Amino acid sequence: MTTLKPFLSDNAAPVHPRVWEAMQAADSADNPYDGDALSAELDTRFTDLFGRECAGLWIATGTAANCLALATMVQPHGGVVCHEEAHIEVDEGGAPGFYLHGAKLMLAQGEGAKLTPTAIAALIDPIRDDVHQVQPHAIAITQASEYGRSYTPRELAALAEFAKARGLGLHMDGARFANAAAFLGGDASAAAGGVDSLAFGCIKNGAMSAEAVVLFDPEQADLVKYRRKRAGHLQCKGRYLAAQVLAMLEDDLWLDNARHANAAAAEIASGCGDRLMHPVEANELFVRLSPEEREALRAQDFAFYDWGDDAARFVTAWDTKAEDAAALGKAIAAL
Amino acid sequence: MTTLKPFLSDNAAPVHPRVWEAMQAADSADNPYDGDALSAELDTRFTDLFGRECAGLWIATGTAANCLALATMVQPHGGVVCHEEAHIEVDEGGAPGFYLHGAKLMLAQGEGAKLTPTAIAALIDPIRDDVHQVQPHAIAITQASEYGRSYTPRELAALAEFAKARGLGLHMDGARFANAAAFLGGDASAAAGGVDSLAFGCIKNGAMSAEAVVLFDPEQADLVKYRRKRAGHLQCKGRYLAAQVLAMLEDDLWLDNARHANAAAAEIASGCGDRLMHPVEANELFVRLSPEEREALRAQDFAFYDWGDDAARFVTAWDTKAEDAAALGKAIAAL
Amino acid sequence: MTTLKPFLSDNAAPVHPRVWEAMQAADSADNPYDGDALSAELDTRFTDLFGRECAGLWIATGTAANCLALATMVQPHGGVVCHEEAHIEVDEGGAPGFYLHGAKLMLAQGEGAKLTPTAIAALIDPIRDDVHQVQPHAIAITQASEYGRSYTPRELAALAEFAKARGLGLHMDGARFANAAAFLGGDASAAAGGVDSLAFGCIKNGAMSAEAVVLFDPEQADLVKYRRKRAGHLQCKGRYLAAQVLAMLEDDLWLDNARHANAAAAEIASGCGDRLMHPVEANELFVRLSPEEREALRAQDFAFYDWGDDAARFVTAWDTKAEDAAALGKAIAAL
Amino acid sequence: MTTLKPFLSDNAAPVHPRVWEAMQAADSADNPYDGDALSAELDTRFTDLFGRECAGLWIATGTAANCLALATMVQPHGGVVCHEEAHIEVDEGGAPGFYLHGAKLMLAQGEGAKLTPTAIAALIDPIRDDVHQVQPHAIAITQASEYGRSYTPRELAALAEFAKARGLGLHMDGARFANAAAFLGGDASAAAGGVDSLAFGCIKNGAMSAEAVVLFDPEQADLVKYRRKRAGHLQCKGRYLAAQVLAMLEDDLWLDNARHANAAAAEIASGCGDRLMHPVEANELFVRLSPEEREALRAQDFAFYDWGDDAARFVTAWDTKAEDAAALGKAIAAL
Repeated sequence: MTTLKPFLSDNAAPVHPRVWEAMQAADSADNPYDGDALSAELDTRFTDLFGRECAGLWIATGTAANCLALATMVQPHGGVVCHEEAHIEVDEGGAPGFYLHGAKLMLAQGEGAKLTPTAIAALIDPIRDDVHQVQPHAIAITQASEYGRSYTPRELAALAEFAKARGLGLHMDGARFANAAAFLGGDASAAAGGVDSLAFGCIKNGAMSAEAVVLFDPEQADLVKYRRKRAGHLQCKGRYLAAQVLAMLEDDLWLDNARHANAAAAEIASGCGDRLMHPVEANELFVRLSPEEREALRAQDFAFYDWGDDAARFVTAWDTKAEDAAALGKAIAAL
Repeated sequence: MTTLKPFLSDNAAPVHPRVWEAMQAADSADNPYDGDALSAELDTRFTDLFGRECAGLWIATGTAANCLALATMVQPHGGVVCHEEAHIEVDEGGAPGFYLHGAKLMLAQGEGAKLTPTAIAALIDPIRDDVHQVQPHAIAITQASEYGRSYTPRELAALAEFAKARGLGLHMDGARFANAAAFLGGDASAAAGGVDSLAFGCIKNGAMSAEAVVLFDPEQADLVKYRRKRAGHLQCKGRYLAAQVLAMLEDDLWLDNARHANAAAAEIASGCGDRLMHPVEANELFVRLSPEEREALRAQDFAFYDWGDDAARFVTAWDTKAEDAAALGKAIAAL
Repeated sequence: MTTLKPFLSDNAAPVHPRVWEAMQAADSADNPYDGDALSAELDTRFTDLFGRECAGLWIATGTAANCLALATMVQPHGGVVCHEEAHIEVDEGGAPGFYLHGAKLMLAQGEGAKLTPTAIAALIDPIRDDVHQVQPHAIAITQASEYGRSYTPRELAALAEFAKARGLGLHMDGARFANAAAFLGGDASAAAGGVDSLAFGCIKNGAMSAEAVVLFDPEQADLVKYRRKRAGHLQCKGRYLAAQVLAMLEDDLWLDNARHANAAAAEIASGCGDRLMHPVEANELFVRLSPEEREALRAQDFAFYDWGDDAARFVTAWDTKAEDAAALGKAIAAL
Repeated sequence: MTTLKPFLSDNAAPVHPRVWEAMQAADSADNPYDGDALSAELDTRFTDLFGRECAGLWIATGTAANCLALATMVQPHGGVVCHEEAHIEVDEGGAPGFYLHGAKLMLAQGEGAKLTPTAIAALIDPIRDDVHQVQPHAIAITQASEYGRSYTPRELAALAEFAKARGLGLHMDGARFANAAAFLGGDASAAAGGVDSLAFGCIKNGAMSAEAVVLFDPEQADLVKYRRKRAGHLQCKGRYLAAQVLAMLEDDLWLDNARHANAAAAEIASGCGDRLMHPVEANELFVRLSPEEREALRAQDFAFYDWGDDAARFVTAWDTKAEDAAALGKAIAAL
């Protein structure tokens, strides 16, 4: 039996050895829930990382992270503007409707699954300012986007300014924030821009079961803590989740892992030429490939998902082998 | 610095070595979410354990396990009968209200935090059968109870019969189900009786972050799967949770761990005499102790929680040292 | 066929002629929803009535009025302290759970279904200030209470002070506010005390289908308006509801009707002696009567509800005939 | 001051004299809520009207009617397919999200705000059958549509067949059902087709404050009754609402009023030529008119809403004067 060269997703990769170590180091008993010493470190560590005061809370999934953060901004009768292909709209099983008690996702358009002030204004300006129409309360963007595009600091500044002008919260789904930050040069603060909250992804980047909700208004932490408990997400052995997040932050493991994945993606991209549907600015590639071409690649043991009828998606991860990436790039170039 | 002899709770104990091993053995990539080989085993393993067909799903917390199971039985306009000191009422931060979309907890009374058909009837019989009053849709019991009492098979049969006669679902919060099962002789089926669903606890018994929802009507699994995702509880590396649950079931680790904890509790109980507020039928002790007596015990490095003004709660765990338990029993006897 | 002398409830009485007139006067078309001239008057009229700035919104039921007001004070993860026999707990079909998205009713005790700071403190002081326990966000009282008791200005002041000290909102269910106000001397402001919101009842007092939500922080009106629409309570011909409320306020019809009902209740009470279970401070009487005595009264064509096994409830209304009340008082006295 | 010729909407028209009469005839006391004699007639009257067994319940608004009916078909984790310009999506302030506890509206396209099986399939066929994506549970259509188009019996049959084949509920928002039925020849059954539930509109057609929820599976009535109460929509003097609905059904007042409105709309349409954006199949007209042309019409005292920059909407009602309609038709023709 041959070994597959896996480019299906980064969401099922193994746990990084340093994350394992950190979890095991957390094994001795401590206070339950988030009363342990490790959980207590998160605020400081994220404040250091972003250079502005913030609160950091562990949470088991990105879906819950996004929803809990949005709950600080959005009333049940309000709405969240997001891209029509945003993960919260397409792939979270209606979680925002649950966590926000029926609030509405309002779908804007934009190239590469990215939003712009112009696109958002086109969506919300026609909304009548009356009780018959749901009013937007927040904007949610994804960094890197669902098509592997990274918002630049300039784009983020424009969105933050727009959000502020309109009185809207601004949340960032950072399931692959590390990949965007790595692409943008490694500055966490630049990659987050002026958002109010961030779902800081760790799981796709080497952790097992811990993401972080980062709240740049630390006064919102209390609300998120109550809601996290109420959602059954306050694990009693929370120290194992804190350990994962801290391990990711330690010595920039989060960036190193993302750089590795991005480099592998870039290596593949180098073989794709104008087959690329989107610039590769993180660790995902969307590549035009006919059914026959995809079959040919699979015959060479590359594993990946179809993306509609005429394309494929490839995702690299912290553990992608450089030789696999190189081989894939060459194989595509040779088609 | 002295080492504390810990009897605070079982909810922060270390992870059992065999659980660690199972998690690490799950490290190689597999399908994400619950599409992996380990998650696929759960139905069979629980069906074997209980001797009747059931579905088994991993979930990160008991709070979520209880709520997701109850969602199969309770409409948003209905109610759940539980003990007035039930965990779902007292310590889950309103999670049932969230997961059940506003359904009501209806509080019955009973010795040792246990419910009886009589007590439930006393609560629900006066409810007028009209739309002005919330109607009960389900009953939730805790095995072992919040006071460390175990329902006997006979008591469970009476409750199941009552529930069926009234058209109510019957759910069991089994955060310490293993301790009850161990107390009752080790028969999982007998300890579960005729409940419709069970939150099968692992975390207090040696796991890290995985409980199981067991549904004795497997057709409800689909609903729980959709709701689990919607609640942000479908972890993408679900294999690590499945591994924990399977490790607990393997070679009866769940029972062995519980027997160990129960034995330690019994050892302590042997020193408590009529200080015991409740018979010790699992791994928790509620012991009448004056403030001075508690101080004396703490001076001997025993760690535990006060229980009101004149009592203390002691909880043993899978890792409680036999000598610590013996020492505690003697220390109490010597007061 | 004999004519019954009706003391079942005030909730099905006919509509007062002046309310009919006002509705018919509203028949000519105006702007829909609450954009009409009559709806626009409500803020001013209630501000005049209470002598402090407030917003007034029509709404079709007291249940909705209570819930919409509470939504200004209570987060979905919080709780509302109310009496264990409060209408919102016992007779609103779980509406608070629906409107407050799963928030919890927290049940305090008190004579005559009235709350006191002491009783509330006894309930909420033991609540641990942590995320595991639902925290109270508001207090709801009923004026007159479910047993026909009226809060005095002094009692209301104590409750308002307590609520403020604890950071809790204070809502008043005023389904029979008029009866309480009439009992207290006719001063609306004194009968409302320092509450933050009031469900101002009209329907039991001569209107057809309109109550009012009165918000003493008018800035909350916007939220209530969005939520009223979202709950399907923004009627397009709202002018007919506004007309009813305005008719009640016009020339103190609300007080006159309540005085009439209260006088009838007092007349009945004069025949009850120590049969009365509660002082009669509005338009409801709870009277100890054996089954045989109740049968005897019914044989005299008095219509009323049993209240448990050994008592009955009598309710008077704006249209109760003085001779019927006198006859009932005498009939009871003669038992 | 001149009198306006009103074509703004049918939602603020006066109450029809026969509805007034019926309400006043209901003035004598009866059982509260829906326990009165009039409410008890609704099931039979609607069963007669539609020629198949159904339950009929009064409700104060179409928004609530739609949402309560949908709640019989849609789980909180599911979705409702509707047109992207459907009233429930655009103009109900997020009520479906509230009543359905976060369920999702899934937006399909179609000419004239009408749905077809093809359009629905195009929307839902790409939805992956997994828990990450919200699954449709029901379809909602509007008869007559938001652009005044009526579904023919044939179109309705196709939709019902499609819904059944896909296991979806089928609900009809009939805010202007009477106008559609009148257009289609006056057969209620034909105009409702095989839907599972119908919000039977009365208010735009001469009633004051009562619509009806019609459930063609009468077993769902219980759920709707509990939810109606829970939503604060169970009015205690429900007989006045029942009276309105019964008055509409009596001697086909509902059809006569709709025919009158439709005739007025047809009269206007006769002057519009190819200015009409949609065929006129009920009582609404969408007419291409430049700003100058609209100004000219308003100068002749016609009142109406703009519809975007280059069109206007005209709505006729049961009380539209034939001469006003004729004048408007001529005025447009003369532009």
